[in-house]
Formats: sequence, C-alpha cells, structure tokens
Amino acid sequence: MESTAVVLIICPDRKGLVAGVAGLLYRYGANIVHADQHQDHDAGLFFMRVEWSLDGFDLEAFGTEFQVLAAEMQMAWHLELMEDRPRVAVFVSQYQHCLADILHRHQVGELRCDIPLIVSNHPDAEPLVRFHGIPFHHIPVSASTRDEAERAQLALLERDQVSVVVLARYMQILSPAFVRHFPSRIINVHHSFLPAFVGARPYHAAFERGVKLVGATSHYVTAQLDDGPIIEQDVARISHRDQVQDIVEKGRDLERMVLSRALKWHLERRVLCYGNKTVVFD
Amino acid sequence: MESTAVVLIICPDRKGLVAGVAGLLYRYGANIVHADQHQDHDAGLFFMRVEWSLDGFDLEAFGTEFQVLAAEMQMAWHLELMEDRPRVAVFVSQYQHCLADILHRHQVGELRCDIPLIVSNHPDAEPLVRFHGIPFHHIPVSASTRDEAERAQLALLERDQVSVVVLARYMQILSPAFVRHFPSRIINVHHSFLPAFVGARPYHAAFERGVKLVGATSHYVTAQLDDGPIIEQDVARISHRDQVQDIVEKGRDLERMVLSRALKWHLERRVLCYGNKTVVFD
Amino acid sequence: MESTAVVLIICPDRKGLVAGVAGLLYRYGANIVHADQHQDHDAGLFFMRVEWSLDGFDLEAFGTEFQVLAAEMQMAWHLELMEDRPRVAVFVSQYQHCLADILHRHQVGELRCDIPLIVSNHPDAEPLVRFHGIPFHHIPVSASTRDEAERAQLALLERDQVSVVVLARYMQILSPAFVRHFPSRIINVHHSFLPAFVGARPYHAAFERGVKLVGATSHYVTAQLDDGPIIEQDVARISHRDQVQDIVEKGRDLERMVLSRALKWHLERRVLCYGNKTVVFD
Amino acid sequence: MESTAVVLIICPDRKGLVAGVAGLLYRYGANIVHADQHQDHDAGLFFMRVEWSLDGFDLEAFGTEFQVLAAEMQMAWHLELMEDRPRVAVFVSQYQHCLADILHRHQVGELRCDIPLIVSNHPDAEPLVRFHGIPFHHIPVSASTRDEAERAQLALLERDQVSVVVLARYMQILSPAFVRHFPSRIINVHHSFLPAFVGARPYHAAFERGVKLVGATSHYVTAQLDDGPIIEQDVARISHRDQVQDIVEKGRDLERMVLSRALKWHLERRVLCYGNKTVVFD
Repeated sequence: MESTAVVLIICPDRKGLVAGVAGLLYRYGANIVHADQHQDHDAGLFFMRVEWSLDGFDLEAFGTEFQVLAAEMQMAWHLELMEDRPRVAVFVSQYQHCLADILHRHQVGELRCDIPLIVSNHPDAEPLVRFHGIPFHHIPVSASTRDEAERAQLALLERDQVSVVVLARYMQILSPAFVRHFPSRIINVHHSFLPAFVGARPYHAAFERGVKLVGATSHYVTAQLDDGPIIEQDVARISHRDQVQDIVEKGRDLERMVLSRALKWHLERRVLCYGNKTVVFD
Repeated sequence: MESTAVVLIICPDRKGLVAGVAGLLYRYGANIVHADQHQDHDAGLFFMRVEWSLDGFDLEAFGTEFQVLAAEMQMAWHLELMEDRPRVAVFVSQYQHCLADILHRHQVGELRCDIPLIVSNHPDAEPLVRFHGIPFHHIPVSASTRDEAERAQLALLERDQVSVVVLARYMQILSPAFVRHFPSRIINVHHSFLPAFVGARPYHAAFERGVKLVGATSHYVTAQLDDGPIIEQDVARISHRDQVQDIVEKGRDLERMVLSRALKWHLERRVLCYGNKTVVFD
Repeated sequence: MESTAVVLIICPDRKGLVAGVAGLLYRYGANIVHADQHQDHDAGLFFMRVEWSLDGFDLEAFGTEFQVLAAEMQMAWHLELMEDRPRVAVFVSQYQHCLADILHRHQVGELRCDIPLIVSNHPDAEPLVRFHGIPFHHIPVSASTRDEAERAQLALLERDQVSVVVLARYMQILSPAFVRHFPSRIINVHHSFLPAFVGARPYHAAFERGVKLVGATSHYVTAQLDDGPIIEQDVARISHRDQVQDIVEKGRDLERMVLSRALKWHLERRVLCYGNKTVVFD
Repeated sequence: MESTAVVLIICPDRKGLVAGVAGLLYRYGANIVHADQHQDHDAGLFFMRVEWSLDGFDLEAFGTEFQVLAAEMQMAWHLELMEDRPRVAVFVSQYQHCLADILHRHQVGELRCDIPLIVSNHPDAEPLVRFHGIPFHHIPVSASTRDEAERAQLALLERDQVSVVVLARYMQILSPAFVRHFPSRIINVHHSFLPAFVGARPYHAAFERGVKLVGATSHYVTAQLDDGPIIEQDVARISHRDQVQDIVEKGRDLERMVLSRALKWHLERRVLCYGNKTVVFD
C-alpha cells in the first residue's frame, strides 16, 4: 500500500471550500485517492475528508500553506499519515467475544493499528491475549478502588502512548476525569439499540418489552452514560421463541460486529464528531 | 381455497396438551393443514394454533367436546372459521401512505377481510377511498369534540359490525373508553423503533440523537400510549446524509410494511397476546 | 426548493479534476449544495456529481467555459437543471403493484418527474391509471404484432417527449431496436436476485432450489435479457414454510421497493453507468 | 440443562400423525419441551421434531412402541439424546476466519459438540488450533495425492468417531466417494448467494457483475459442486465504492455467520433434508 495522508475538516459552510482545498492540493501536485464531503445545511457546517498519495509530495510546505487557508476558513482540522498506526488499548471484563473478534481482525490485517496492551478487571482473558502476543494487565476494580485503578490504567496508557481506548464489553463505568483524557477517542459497545434500553441488563429489558428486533450500538464515550455520539448500530430479528439466553447469543454477534466496524472506521480516519453526532465517510 | 377452522389456545403448560387437542381432532377425522405450538417455560404457559379442513367435519359435535377438554385444561381459546372474514375499519388522518398500502393489498387479495368503512378526521383521503368503492366518513376531531366524535365513530363501527380497527397514521389519541371496546383489536403503527422515541415527532428525535437506523413498530393499542403488545418492527439504515425529510420518506416505507404485515397476521389468526407481548405463529 | 443545476462527469482519472471543476464553479460564484466523487482505481476512471444553486449564477457563461475544461479532461458529461422534470412512461401488464407504488409516490411528491402516459398490453390497469388522471394506452402485443406494437409505442413516447421508460412488471421483451432508442433510460425490475434465476418464473425456480432468501433487482435494460447494469437489489428471508404463493407475495414488496428506489435515484441524477455497472451517488 | 430426547420424522402426510406421536408420548408421561411440525402440501410430506424431558421417562419401552407406530406411518426417523454430543471435524485451508469463529463459539458453549480434530492441507492454522487444545492434522493435498489424502482423512475421521464434517473455507473439492461416507453430514460454506456465482472466485465475479449485495451460503455437500441442500444464506450491502478487497472483507463476516449458524442448527437436530432442500425448525 502506497503512503497517503488524510485531512479531516469541519468548518462553517461557505463558498470556495472545495475549490480552496482541492486547488491547494493540485498546486502541490497531489494525486487524490479518495475525497468525500458533506454539508449539514441546517447547522451551516461543512465536512471534508481528503486522502492523497505522498509520492513526491512536499508535505511540509503544503502544511504551512494549508494552515493559512484553514485559519481563513475557520477550519477545525487534523492531518495524519495513514501509515501512522494508532495505538489502541482494549478494555475487557469477563465476556471475551468482542475482544476475540478484534484480535482476530487485527491478526488478519483488517485493523490498521498497534495494540500494545489489553486491560481487564478480571483475569479470564489472559490466555487469549497471551496467544496473540500482547501484554495483559489485570487491574481489579471495586467501588472503593476505582480511582486508584483508573490512575494505574492511565499510567499504562500514557506509558504505551495509547491514543484510542476500546471498551469491549468492559463492565465498569469510567469516571468523567478518565473520559476527559480521551475526547472522542473511547469507543464503547452498548448491547441495545440506543436510545432504547439505556443502562443495565438491556437484553432482559428487551425480552420483557416483547420487541421483535434486538440491537447493539457502538458510540464514543462522553461523561453521560450511553449518550455519546453513535458510530454504528445494527439489529437482529427475534421472535416469541427467543428466551433471554437466545437473545444474549444473537446479541453477541451484533456487539462484535458493530464494535469492530466502529473501530475500523475510526482507524481509517473516516469518523468526524460534531454536536452529539457523527459523520462516517464512505 | 377449502374451508378450514382454526383454534387459538393459551393455557397453563402441562403434560398431554398436544395429545389432548390432536387426539380429539383425530377422533373427529380432522385433516390438519397447519399446527404450531409454543411454550413459555418461564411463565409456565402453553400456546397453540391448529388449523384443519372442514371437509366432512362435524364442527358442532367437536365444539361441544372441545369445550369439556378446554375447561379441564383451563384454556383460554377461540375457534373461528377462516372463511369468516373479519370486518375492518381503517382510521386515517392526512398521511395516506399506510391507507393506500392496505387498500391495494386488499384489492389484490392479500388481506382476508371486509373493509366496510374508512374514518378520517380530515377530508383528504376521500377520493382514494371512493376509488376503492368504500364508504368514507369524515368526522373532525378537536379537543372539545373528542367525546362526541368517538361516540359517532363507535356508532358507525357497531352499525357496520366492525371487529378490528386499524390506525393508519391516525393522529388522534383514542380515549381509554374507546380502547376498551376493542381489546387487542386496535392495531396502530408508531413511526419509531419502540421503546425508543415514544410520543410525538419521533423522526425528528431520531435525527437529533444521530441514530444510524430508524424504525417503525406496529402494536395493539392499550390505554397507555405507545406501550401495547408489539406485533412487528422493522428498521432502515440512515446516514449523516439523511436530513429529517429523508428520514420521513424512508420511514413511510417502514410504516406501511410493518402495519400491513401486522394486519395480515392478525387476520390470519396468527397472533396471540399475553401479558404485554405477542406470540406470532409462523 | 431553490433552483439547482447538476453536472455528472465520467473521465479518465488524473490530477486536478476536483480542483478544475470546483475552481471553475467558485470563480462563477456557485454555492455548492452537494458534491460527491468516486474513483475506480482499477479502471482508471473518475466520476463526479456536483449540484449547486442557480441563484445569481450565470449558467450560460459557465457552460461555455466548462466545455473547454471538459474537452481538455476528456470528460463525458451532462448538465441538467434539477427543476427540469424528466418525462416518464410506465409500461405495465397485469400485475399492478409496482405501478400502484410509483403512482402513489408520484402523487405524494417523492418522484420528481411528469408521467404523461401509461402503456399496457392488458386493459386491467386502466381504472387505477384514470384515477390518477393519466392517459392510459392499451396496446396489445402478440408474437406476430410485436413490431407494429413497438412502432405504436415509440410514436406515443416521441409525441409525449418521454425520456425515461419504466417497465413495471411489463411481461413483454422489448426488441433491441426499441432498446436502442433509450440507452440507459429504460429501467426494469426482475423478480430475482440477479444473476441468480435469470429468465422466466424465478420465484418458482427459487422455491425449487430451496434458497433461504429471495430477491429482486432493478436494472437498466440492454439488448441482452436480464443482463443490464444493476441499480438496486434487495432480499427478503423465506423459510421452508413459504410455498410459491408466499414467495410471490413477499417478492411483490421487494419488486416495488427496488424499482421505485431505482427510479427515484435516476430522476435525482444520481446514477452513472459505465461498462455494465452503475455508480449510485449518495 | 435437563436431559432430553429428540425425534425427527419425515413421512407421507396423513391424518392422525400428530395425534399418534403426541398420544404415545403422553401415555409414557413425556413432558414435551419443544414441538414443531411442517407439511409440504405439494409433496404430500409431513415433518416433525419433538423434544421431551427424559426425567422419569422409560425411553427403551417407548422406543419399542414407537417403532411400531413409525412402521405403520412409513416414517423415516431418528431419535437422539440431546446430551450425546456429535463429534465434529473441521477442515480448513489458509483462511482461518470461519475456523476461528467456530472455535470461539465452541469455547463459550454455543456449539453443543466435541471437536476431536482439525484437518488442513496447509500448516497455517496449527497455532490457533493448538491454543484451543485440539489435535491438528496437516495433510497436504495435490491433484496426484488426493486419493491418498482422502484415505488418510477418512482413517482419522473413523478413528475419532466423527459424525459431522465442517468445511470451513476448505479449498479442496472432496471426491464423491468421500462425500458418500457422510450423507447430509458435511457442511460447506460457499462465498456467494447461491445459485449465483457457482464455482471459483465468486467475489470477483460479483464485482464484475456489479451486484449491490453480496452473499454467502452454507449447505450440505453432495456429489455435485455447490448444489447441495441450502441450510442458511445471508447478504451484505455493497456499493460502487467497494473494490474486490472490500467485498472479500465483508464476505468474511457473512461466511462465518452462515456457517456457524448452520452448524449450530445441525447440532441442535433442527435440520431435516428432503429432496434438495432443508426444513430448519425454529
């Protein structure tokens, strides 16, 4: 795969944005490999993602000039090299299906990231993690030790230069202080079609309500529980024949699919957050 | 299509239920064309639907003996002839997509019912209804006239011997008194994936929340708004590109599908209510 | 809705395409409301769709200059005003579900087109068509009269300045000569998930094969039967319980959905054909 | 989980079948936990699956009497104890996603079977298999050694008393002689929506044809390639943006889902084959 750079942009919508960005890239001889934009007409916002080949491209000079354009257009932006692999930590508790899915996809090359560590409040996942050759950190958490545990977790994340945290059915609620360290960079999976069945035991609640579809939702974590920007959702059909255990099994497949898709899209720099929503570029 | 009878049964689960019903039918020489049963092990309940040919079958004698069995087994049951076509009234307001769908399906023979009247609080649907040769009753409703309007509606439903009421995007809330006349026999469509987005303007709420799927739900109406037993649900994928108007359009297709399916299954005597849930036999 | 213009472009991929188009639009003061592009790296092709407001825009002067750019870039392109409503003829035989769906959507404003006529080789659809206030032409077709029938059809289409023909379960095969009059402008629905079950009686074939999903496909018509560029496909789940008649009913819902979606996208100038494929812009 | 027995029945449809089976079970005091039946009216066939508790049940005496009934009713049947775990061999080549999925589900208890061995014509999967504590047999296969390889495979399957063979993207075609050893007991996954794209490289063929959905199919293996009774199918949406590699990735998720579902249903004794079709009981 050739080296590419990608720039993600949010700014007030106005004339000349595409022309400005595309024109500047053209002047520097960029070979664009993907470009996508979106306008939220109600909010008056413009979103753009452009990816171009770095072959013979003077990124430094471009960057200097781009900053001028970005300032003029009031852009919030970030520019990254696709070959810079984000460093991802996965947090897990006892259920390992999401973790196993992520590790398998990582192994076959679907997820462009490094995974320097796995953190768990239970010891169960250690063999699986070791099999994949990744350091495993068992950090138990209880109500009285949560602050201390989070300090230990944060120290590890800092040491390993982690930029993305994935909660793969991690059954502890992170403190607002922890969340503030990773704005729009903690991805959780909730086992319901949010905003239905917020909180604990959503499959039981779905069974009680007699719904005909169950769902799962991956979202960025914010200070408010199960309320962050949604990245992906999916559902599966159930019937009166499905007891809670059947729903749990069908739900497991949903959970791992929506979490892995969200992580993949995040790593490909395809997700932009604004307000409490996401733009996920194709 | 040959004449058939169908019996729907709910009773406490115990040994000998299938043997009892099937054995009795066999003694009367019934040719069973469909049979399905379900057990809710948690609730200790048994559900059964059996349909058999009436060709050379002594229904009266069978009925007498079946009542003895049913009493012994503490069955709640009802026995109907499939050729008895339920009489259905459709209530509609300004949006006609669900009504148009029902009338088209009725015309091509998908819905085994008679539709003796359409009731609306707006005049808009009259041409469509007249085209289908069905009497149209325009009964305006306001806060101050609701009771009077419901009395007029009930008089019409009684006069036309209506047994099923379909709310095809009827934008008025029926009084508990009205609902009590048709227990488990008023079918509504709500334009969200219940229990998410209960109440007014669910598509706007879905847009605000930034969900990635929108849904629709058909359910029996109970005294509590949007809380009755769910018959069918479905969803469609949306993206950041979909503005509220796009969601409304995608939602229209969901609404008419889930409402028409629910009505079809109800007419085929395939739906059993218990607690706040449904069993929908295949 | 404000007036907008849209340009659709296919050309060999090269540097500067987005910059060229966006730059030119910017120089003319265009307010872009939607823009999307795609690159087929294997084929070395670039595809673009841009839509912009005509408010205070000098379209004529832009057009002159755009032609120069287009020639330089070897673009195949067409530029249209979104307010120019394509004129659509619907061909139908005995099954009316797709026709009814199109007419209903047209009535509620989902389909931005005029429908000056409906053509059928059967008289059945006349009442429905008349209800919608559209002229109905009954042109019977037999093996010996096909040429003559097509001449009559073409005369009507020419007289009514029709640019798009929709085959809404029209059960006659059009001659290559007829098809040549409307390149990439005849939209058909085939009642299978193409390329499975090409040809006659696909639901029967699906039943015989014991598939677990049935599908429908909308596509542009080419000289080769059921082989044109696919615009949209969808599927529905079936089980061993579904007999042919059940499959036919489930299929009807698929057919009308995929055909109406294809027509809608075509009318919104979102579909580009190349080779035997389509690009459908979001 | 309590001990249960299950009987699967196919026979000519006639009166008294349900009464006969249910009545006999009742006389022996069976507590039925699941029962389902199906009639293919065209084929004149009756299908039944009954599962009942073995608690205090005289299976031997029942079995003797059931054989008399079965003979009288011309039943093809088999009776099994659900606690008898089928012994499953998984065959795999280089792609490990289906194997990894099966091993993970087996580990968490979703698949009620024993897996005494994994067979592969490549060495790649050995570490994964060893991690799960299962013997791995590397048996290379070439055109000239196929017969010998199959003899070695059959010897292992016999030694390990294997009753079900799963082809988890095993890229070799089994000989008719091998297939005859496991009638309706070899489960394969084909990476297309059969009968579309039979044979090699179906994702490439799907890409070339420009389909809008790709699929996967699990089926029992028969002597004719990709033509056996279908157990399960599923599809995923693709667009013009998906290149072959994207389709391959989306397809992997389909493949493991449809293969694992088929295996699960087979192990739960929910699948009956007849003609070239399956009945999959709920």
